Amino acid sequence: MRFLSSGESHGKGLNCIIEGFPANVEINVEEINEELSRRQKGYGRGKRMNIESDAIEVMAGIRFGKTIGSPISLYVRNKDWENWKLRMSSENIYHDPELSVKAPRPGHADLPGVIKYNQDDIRNILERASARETTTRTAVGAVAKQLLKVFGIEIYSRVASLGSVEDVTVIEKGESYWTKIRESELSMYDPEAEKKTKALIDKSKEEGDTLGGIVEVSIYNVPVGLGSHVHYDRKLDAKLAMDIMSLQAVKGFEMGAGFKTATTPGSKIHDEIVYTDGYHHKTNNAGGIEGGMSNGETIQFKAAVKPIPTLMKPLQTVDIDSKERIDACKERSDVCAVPAAGVVMENIAAFVIANAMIEKFGGDSIEEMKANYDNYMKYVEER
Amino acid sequence: MRFLSSGESHGKGLNCIIEGFPANVEINVEEINEELSRRQKGYGRGKRMNIESDAIEVMAGIRFGKTIGSPISLYVRNKDWENWKLRMSSENIYHDPELSVKAPRPGHADLPGVIKYNQDDIRNILERASARETTTRTAVGAVAKQLLKVFGIEIYSRVASLGSVEDVTVIEKGESYWTKIRESELSMYDPEAEKKTKALIDKSKEEGDTLGGIVEVSIYNVPVGLGSHVHYDRKLDAKLAMDIMSLQAVKGFEMGAGFKTATTPGSKIHDEIVYTDGYHHKTNNAGGIEGGMSNGETIQFKAAVKPIPTLMKPLQTVDIDSKERIDACKERSDVCAVPAAGVVMENIAAFVIANAMIEKFGGDSIEEMKANYDNYMKYVEER
Amino acid sequence: MRFLSSGESHGKGLNCIIEGFPANVEINVEEINEELSRRQKGYGRGKRMNIESDAIEVMAGIRFGKTIGSPISLYVRNKDWENWKLRMSSENIYHDPELSVKAPRPGHADLPGVIKYNQDDIRNILERASARETTTRTAVGAVAKQLLKVFGIEIYSRVASLGSVEDVTVIEKGESYWTKIRESELSMYDPEAEKKTKALIDKSKEEGDTLGGIVEVSIYNVPVGLGSHVHYDRKLDAKLAMDIMSLQAVKGFEMGAGFKTATTPGSKIHDEIVYTDGYHHKTNNAGGIEGGMSNGETIQFKAAVKPIPTLMKPLQTVDIDSKERIDACKERSDVCAVPAAGVVMENIAAFVIANAMIEKFGGDSIEEMKANYDNYMKYVEER
Amino acid sequence: MRFLSSGESHGKGLNCIIEGFPANVEINVEEINEELSRRQKGYGRGKRMNIESDAIEVMAGIRFGKTIGSPISLYVRNKDWENWKLRMSSENIYHDPELSVKAPRPGHADLPGVIKYNQDDIRNILERASARETTTRTAVGAVAKQLLKVFGIEIYSRVASLGSVEDVTVIEKGESYWTKIRESELSMYDPEAEKKTKALIDKSKEEGDTLGGIVEVSIYNVPVGLGSHVHYDRKLDAKLAMDIMSLQAVKGFEMGAGFKTATTPGSKIHDEIVYTDGYHHKTNNAGGIEGGMSNGETIQFKAAVKPIPTLMKPLQTVDIDSKERIDACKERSDVCAVPAAGVVMENIAAFVIANAMIEKFGGDSIEEMKANYDNYMKYVEER
Repeated sequence: MRFLSSGESHGKGLNCIIEGFPANVEINVEEINEELSRRQKGYGRGKRMNIESDAIEVMAGIRFGKTIGSPISLYVRNKDWENWKLRMSSENIYHDPELSVKAPRPGHADLPGVIKYNQDDIRNILERASARETTTRTAVGAVAKQLLKVFGIEIYSRVASLGSVEDVTVIEKGESYWTKIRESELSMYDPEAEKKTKALIDKSKEEGDTLGGIVEVSIYNVPVGLGSHVHYDRKLDAKLAMDIMSLQAVKGFEMGAGFKTATTPGSKIHDEIVYTDGYHHKTNNAGGIEGGMSNGETIQFKAAVKPIPTLMKPLQTVDIDSKERIDACKERSDVCAVPAAGVVMENIAAFVIANAMIEKFGGDSIEEMKANYDNYMKYVEER
Repeated sequence: MRFLSSGESHGKGLNCIIEGFPANVEINVEEINEELSRRQKGYGRGKRMNIESDAIEVMAGIRFGKTIGSPISLYVRNKDWENWKLRMSSENIYHDPELSVKAPRPGHADLPGVIKYNQDDIRNILERASARETTTRTAVGAVAKQLLKVFGIEIYSRVASLGSVEDVTVIEKGESYWTKIRESELSMYDPEAEKKTKALIDKSKEEGDTLGGIVEVSIYNVPVGLGSHVHYDRKLDAKLAMDIMSLQAVKGFEMGAGFKTATTPGSKIHDEIVYTDGYHHKTNNAGGIEGGMSNGETIQFKAAVKPIPTLMKPLQTVDIDSKERIDACKERSDVCAVPAAGVVMENIAAFVIANAMIEKFGGDSIEEMKANYDNYMKYVEER
Repeated sequence: MRFLSSGESHGKGLNCIIEGFPANVEINVEEINEELSRRQKGYGRGKRMNIESDAIEVMAGIRFGKTIGSPISLYVRNKDWENWKLRMSSENIYHDPELSVKAPRPGHADLPGVIKYNQDDIRNILERASARETTTRTAVGAVAKQLLKVFGIEIYSRVASLGSVEDVTVIEKGESYWTKIRESELSMYDPEAEKKTKALIDKSKEEGDTLGGIVEVSIYNVPVGLGSHVHYDRKLDAKLAMDIMSLQAVKGFEMGAGFKTATTPGSKIHDEIVYTDGYHHKTNNAGGIEGGMSNGETIQFKAAVKPIPTLMKPLQTVDIDSKERIDACKERSDVCAVPAAGVVMENIAAFVIANAMIEKFGGDSIEEMKANYDNYMKYVEER
Repeated sequence: MRFLSSGESHGKGLNCIIEGFPANVEINVEEINEELSRRQKGYGRGKRMNIESDAIEVMAGIRFGKTIGSPISLYVRNKDWENWKLRMSSENIYHDPELSVKAPRPGHADLPGVIKYNQDDIRNILERASARETTTRTAVGAVAKQLLKVFGIEIYSRVASLGSVEDVTVIEKGESYWTKIRESELSMYDPEAEKKTKALIDKSKEEGDTLGGIVEVSIYNVPVGLGSHVHYDRKLDAKLAMDIMSLQAVKGFEMGAGFKTATTPGSKIHDEIVYTDGYHHKTNNAGGIEGGMSNGETIQFKAAVKPIPTLMKPLQTVDIDSKERIDACKERSDVCAVPAAGVVMENIAAFVIANAMIEKFGGDSIEEMKANYDNYMKYVEER
């Protein structure tokens, strides 16, 4: 399975094509839209999120509610297009150089982008580098989630910390945890932490500042043996790291205990193996992956989300023409988008895991894939 | 550029084929061997490292000291092969099931590997999953380093912490720093920290325990504009993350300030842009990559290395046949390999950066690639 | 550069996303539409071609008439969608099993497709397997052509034979040839052959039969050194073969003299090398590619196009439910589409050559790519 | 599954690494060597073939006669290395520019290669472009054949014509045909054609000329549904075309009736479908592939092999330094290698089909892959 996406933040819309998805998977469009909606929410978002209320249009690959093996194409219209259609026109006649963006924002693709691609107008970079692109990645993942559902695989995210506030809850398997977290405006379990965080966000808003945080993602019921140890580029943790680190604001990634493993002696960090009704580990510091393969435990990773780089209290930069010192522009006014980043990560992870499932179980239809999976799970039970 | 590697830890040897490397690059075999030698050193290594003293044999792709465009094949013989040739034979007649390994080590590929690949002998997994494989990755990177040298790109690693000991040195550009670090048995700059760490290692050895640590890698003189913001799978930080996270013991990865960005307000973490003789950033919290592209600053990342999972004080596991509780085997007796992990990371990073250079500057010979690079750098200067 | 396409023949429309295209290339939408229009023409086409009159809508990646480095997304609406929107709906409520197609057409994807993808309705296969998909490939190639134009590379096709009629013209470099061929309804140079072919087509139409033919494609001004001899999967002829053979009706492919080389002694078939103002070959039996690399001569290949498998005089097949013998359905009434196949091949070839150019010359903007190209061409002159 | 190969014609040896091959496949080294030996035979070969008598050494990936999931590395030593070790040394001290090759041979990679890779010595190109490289491709395919054997898939080649002589035999399924062909020195079934061909080869030898021919490959027992119609780059015929066209001397490729389909009306060329104990086609003009997918019939293709471009009666060329007209060098003295090309094609085809099998049936061990295959075949029977 592979996909390509396209679309600029203020362009007509966003599009993705997913190729290599099994046939006969039931696709519920409402569930995709629900993921898009979750991506737009969260305490600390600005007004633009309300304008959008994204919804996909199925362009190809789904018929009568099911995939048919053909590439799946999904489209999300940009609601604000009418206001942008001249400034983002594909036609040269609307080109007004006066409207070019000249101030590269620190922490963004702006400066390296205009140099790399030889552009005079920073808008030609920022439109694509924008986190708006995660809409398509969420849509792709939302489709993958519906494949994973067939195998009982579920993916959840929570905010483990936001700015200086930590939610120290230890999350165990169990729907009640996740229901509560989904209901939180900050994807936090602990109401005390949530309350403190809201106060912090309000304060940051007043100060024109922004906040980052740490997201934790848990993936349940992944069969043992996805990924591989045999070649470096087939390791499941490496693939998760790549796709998560490619998310706009992410600056750090940890599998399981992550950086804590670096400071803990070996005798206290490795997960001892026991056998009861099957193989289990006493702990899960590995985060469900050993030797680049899923080991049957819950897959768990954390990612560091940096503060939004577009501040109302603008950072210093320089004009790319005059080289004069100026304020960075402030195109957006969210204080923090950490819970949203969690939603995107769930869906990115869904794509990675679905891909590993397809690679391992093959199959062109969901019926064939499921039969191969069942056959393997029966074998696993007997090991 | 792409490569494949092969080889088992106690097999005949290790091999790699590198395809897509430019022609006419001078390859100094001694420099490759120097990297392999650095990989085997470090305070806290066990005896096996001494047996090996790896050296490559050029099998193809280099003639009269230069690459010729053909795939480069490098081979490293396993010095210990004579002792293993029956137990690792490719021929069935030497098969003695009695010698099979039955105890999967916690923290290793052993258990998921035997299930995934339907094996009865854990040796069929551990031989390939072994960190011995990093020999070939180091060799590949050492070749890449020689390409990067033409462009003045240099890569260094240091141990930022080992177990509970931190070396808080702030590393600035400058050869003197790195010379001192290279001379340290623990890749540390601060002699005090080094001394404490050695004591910690000695103590851990006595206790039969192992240690992990944090490595920091710095890449100097990378031109602005490697990688791309346009599609998620072309981001330079994502690629670094993937390849570093695929290293056996790595459980965490950070670009620049990494997890610290999650707890710092936006106004204090983003790197403001200034123009003097060119574009610069006041700070480098981004670690030299913005929007998935190199931004002209030093590329810096950190990685968490978990403690070696094979302990002299063995962890608990179960026999895969009887399911009885037993001790995990103890095939190796290093206490810690963090400095060596740093050497491997340098070379992995060299491969990633060299690949991005080839992608951006094209060229089939180093002369052509250099001319394209010079042309671009002249343009960058004028921006 | 890579692309994905989606879309069913009677779905909403067809879409493609092109990733990795250099920035600042001027894109003339009319020229893309002109290629789409040429693809729909030719003596012997049925009525559906008139309904369509395809035109692209730019969805992303082009701003003010130029590419900006972002993925390019193009969309072609299906004009007939209104009549099909229930039968091709993505929603399950419109599913009417009575309307399923049950007769697999010989020579089509129908039978292997329904088995592979576990489908009950052949429409779920034929919609994507349809030659309608070549619309997007033509659009992708038409974009690539506009890149190639910057380097003076031009691509033309002609019909060398159609059914039993041959056009034995030897095509030499020269615009006048190609202008005349473009004006022919059958892409033929020889008016006599064209006349005979029209008569043959008319007769076949009466008989309810279909016709195939042979297309020849010529690519001018390709620089020496695209592709590579070093690894099998980097050979330029192999890539052309793959992409041309992936065109729906193509059953044969020849580089240069092709199958004739098999029956001609070596002394009469290899192209002797001379030097005048540069290297040249006395003949071009190799078709411009030696050792998997362009050699500076015109690249020439031929492809065999089989007759359209949907006949008005239907072939025998079986019902996939009852297994009873029935007539294959007759969804389309073209007698022959060989000239159109030539148009598609031109554009497929444009994609392959543009990709090889990007790989060799790198560059993120057309200015950079052109500078690298000029540098190389100067070097070539001096060899 | 993927592989890389390396090695120069007169270098130390040839190497390949195969990654992604299922575990627990029994590998018979003798069978691999048998394929290598077949590649070296055939009436019309020169003396070098006798020097070589290739045999593989297993370097990695096989233990006790079976694959273990790790990358498989195979090595073939060049028997003549002792005589070449200075001229092909990787060390600069042995460089003697006087020994450089300066005459590019028509029909070879020589001229485009030295320009592309900026070389002064044509040997740096011809060593890798040599057909000697097909040794590794044969070895890779020979491994793939042993995977295919588990599924009853068999691959055979014959020489359909050589120079002006045709063997018009129609090959039907049946071992007796292929045994006879394997015993022929020219891979021909018809003794009369064989006799005529030998005379032609003898005459060509006397004249210092070379000969090409047409090879036909048949692949039996391929399950319906390999490849896919959904995206152009997943079509099985396109993949076969690519890999076969990448073989050094191949200039043309046909699936099934190939170019004949271009001149035959639709009513006479498409393979009508019948149902007896399963779906069948009355004829097999499609060559076993419809819509880019195997359709259950025998897969059949033909390829045109051009005459060997190195003639004893040398062709004209120019010295790359002086630009003076000279004779092309004559490094090799085979008259024809068409039967050998057939052996290589069998093995190339084995790789393509094995890869398609792995993609469709997934599975990490042969037991899992076989179970998935059996499950699918049972389903196919019930369709």
